[in-house]
Amino acid sequence: MTTSAESTEVLLFDVFGTVVDWRTSLLRLFQRFGRENNFHADWSSLVDDWRAAYEPSMARVRQGERPYATLDVLHRESLDSLLEGYGLGSMLESDRREMANAWRWLDPWPDTLAGLARLKRNFLIGTLSNGGLGLLVDMAKFAGLPWDVVLSADLFKRYKPDPAVYLGAAELLGRPPNALMLVAAHNYDLAAARSHGYRTAFVARPTEYGPRQKKDFGPEDAWDFTASSLEELAEKMGA
Amino acid sequence: MTTSAESTEVLLFDVFGTVVDWRTSLLRLFQRFGRENNFHADWSSLVDDWRAAYEPSMARVRQGERPYATLDVLHRESLDSLLEGYGLGSMLESDRREMANAWRWLDPWPDTLAGLARLKRNFLIGTLSNGGLGLLVDMAKFAGLPWDVVLSADLFKRYKPDPAVYLGAAELLGRPPNALMLVAAHNYDLAAARSHGYRTAFVARPTEYGPRQKKDFGPEDAWDFTASSLEELAEKMGA
Repeated sequence: MTTSAESTEVLLFDVFGTVVDWRTSLLRLFQRFGRENNFHADWSSLVDDWRAAYEPSMARVRQGERPYATLDVLHRESLDSLLEGYGLGSMLESDRREMANAWRWLDPWPDTLAGLARLKRNFLIGTLSNGGLGLLVDMAKFAGLPWDVVLSADLFKRYKPDPAVYLGAAELLGRPPNALMLVAAHNYDLAAARSHGYRTAFVARPTEYGPRQKKDFGPEDAWDFTASSLEELAEKMGA
Repeated sequence: MTTSAESTEVLLFDVFGTVVDWRTSLLRLFQRFGRENNFHADWSSLVDDWRAAYEPSMARVRQGERPYATLDVLHRESLDSLLEGYGLGSMLESDRREMANAWRWLDPWPDTLAGLARLKRNFLIGTLSNGGLGLLVDMAKFAGLPWDVVLSADLFKRYKPDPAVYLGAAELLGRPPNALMLVAAHNYDLAAARSHGYRTAFVARPTEYGPRQKKDFGPEDAWDFTASSLEELAEKMGA
């Protein structure tokens, strides 16, 4: 009666940067948005500044300086604080909402769909992202990401690398942490996952941040797997 | 930049009875399990008694008589209390665990996979079950259920029809309750969902409980949709 699925290993993926190319996607979306609505701005710089606000905005939640809020809310607040400086301070509510929602309509990296399809044959695949559940589900539907399960920091009202996220995911899945592997393009995330018993796979995304990228060009520890694409990871994992 | 997916309606499915035929599946699994391990019992009656213990076991959690425990734990406790009466009191731990895990290896109704495939083209589809997240994910992988999102009462440490489950799912998905529709074979579940603003679809499963079935042969209220299969539901919803 026991089936092989009972012992299926689970691969949980960081999403922004690891699975989807947020920078190129947002840039293209906003350039078109600007043309269609007659907004002019240095979109490239705005996107980079916006992403730069991501970490500090979560840090305020992590450090208890503000109550938990979803990434949708943090994204919107960061955007509001940036627009004035880009000459877009008069932008209407509906346009601001549309810009903040753009984090849902991101394209996968070129190797993502083929890599996930292969990995899904041998493993349970899911997300473990700081994005909210609604955002992740909308993104998956838009981009065709074939997740078996969508897990989010949002479920625990904490942000990675809070231990509650890694340990909570294992508990919900009814598996010990060492039955899970985190796949991420960010060394800090893998270090936290490993410290809680996860296996680890680093996928290099050296163009994620564009010219501002300062780190994560390569693995900074002996992770269980290292690859330059999800297809290469599938290859290395025998999938 | 706005995409149609932004306003995609979400269909959330009750699982046991609505999507999978737990009774026929368990019966077949245990008959084989008995042959292979030389256990003899009235498996049909045991399965029915086991399921009959489901509602009272959750009621004790709902009424605060015991702390929250996942359905896996409740299933196992109910099984342990039944085995002696079926002459199986000496069953070993590993066999008991295998029996309790059988709730993961359930077959879909004959119309389920075709119906879900059609509905998934037009809607976001997911679960809203009292089963734990790990159980639901394992079942989906085993049965090929193509969920976009797996939501469970487990996420809220409550059991349906607790309001926290219906309202919590809407909040996590970032949608108002009236953007969600519950699909279920059980009138009580639809009544609770509707009382919290959900749309509702009844799917008749008149053989779910076998000869002991006493209710839910048909809709007991004017639900938004009524169908006798998920394929018929897809047809009625234009999917």
